[in-house]
Amino acid sequence: MELLKQKILSEGTALSESVLKVDNFLNHQIDPELMVEIGKEFKNYFSDKNITKILTLESSGIAPSVMAGLELGVPVVFARKRKSLTLNEDLLTAEVYSYTKQETSNIAVAGKFLKKDDNVLIIDDFLANGEAANALINVVNQAGANISGIGIVIEKAFQKGGTALREENYDVYSLARIESLENGEIKFLSEAVQ
Amino acid sequence: MELLKQKILSEGTALSESVLKVDNFLNHQIDPELMVEIGKEFKNYFSDKNITKILTLESSGIAPSVMAGLELGVPVVFARKRKSLTLNEDLLTAEVYSYTKQETSNIAVAGKFLKKDDNVLIIDDFLANGEAANALINVVNQAGANISGIGIVIEKAFQKGGTALREENYDVYSLARIESLENGEIKFLSEAVQ
Repeated sequence: MELLKQKILSEGTALSESVLKVDNFLNHQIDPELMVEIGKEFKNYFSDKNITKILTLESSGIAPSVMAGLELGVPVVFARKRKSLTLNEDLLTAEVYSYTKQETSNIAVAGKFLKKDDNVLIIDDFLANGEAANALINVVNQAGANISGIGIVIEKAFQKGGTALREENYDVYSLARIESLENGEIKFLSEAVQ
Repeated sequence: MELLKQKILSEGTALSESVLKVDNFLNHQIDPELMVEIGKEFKNYFSDKNITKILTLESSGIAPSVMAGLELGVPVVFARKRKSLTLNEDLLTAEVYSYTKQETSNIAVAGKFLKKDDNVLIIDDFLANGEAANALINVVNQAGANISGIGIVIEKAFQKGGTALREENYDVYSLARIESLENGEIKFLSEAVQ
């Protein structure tokens, strides 16, 4: 997605060889117009999958997911990173380790929001080692629902998550794939998509 | 906002005299179409305020804020509930106590996203005792920016937050104002707006 790549080049920062900072438009400040375009891109790619629900993880996955949900005409469920007092019924849970935050947290989704006949599109802002995506996959599997695809805004293609998920035959669509962040320089994989 | 009130009546649950569960469309599962209408409603009310930025709090404030940001043509900043490793620069912080979760957390906004000449619209999903709104106000004040208004999706008008903020002359616009949740029944204030 050319618009996204341009945004990453002009406003993103390679903080280290593995950390890309995009807090200007994605995960702290959000550019709503860009989110609309991201939503359209996911809709175009997944439009023939009969998606019935989008599942994401709070917080940075919410904005792109809501725009994709609007385009696809389906509700969005965001997994919560821990139990709150108003989430007291049957919960689907999984553990996720964050390399960025260096901590393990639990994610939880109310069972009533994922059903056996759902075709779920998992969306997240980043894909690196695949920890968050695998936790979301785990939750969908617990519900017995179908995983129709995985939509990622930015994939760090030099980390193992994307390769592993594709080897498991998930349909992973990443809007921007970073080849390297070495020497403070952001390089994309030459291929445009997938 | 009639559509929102109907949604609250048909899908919301009064869990107790003070807790309204709306996880079906607002704070766990999200209805994207409803968010669009909420965004339009905030735009209509605050369109003459020359808003330059929306400030909200993760996670449930994000969806309505992004739609309002899209309508108003401004970026959305969401305060984070704790520091993450990629938020290491100058931070504006405040404490917020959650009655629902019964815990105090810190919220943080990168200083670069709020400037003295910003006209800030604060948006949140709920207004009860005003803890979250006051923390966001605190952050905007630290930046020396102007608070142009406060947009709330659901106000629990039987709690003190809304009254206190209006007494301090903030322009608080709540799309639905709950008068009472007694006996499991959801009652709205008879006035339609404000």
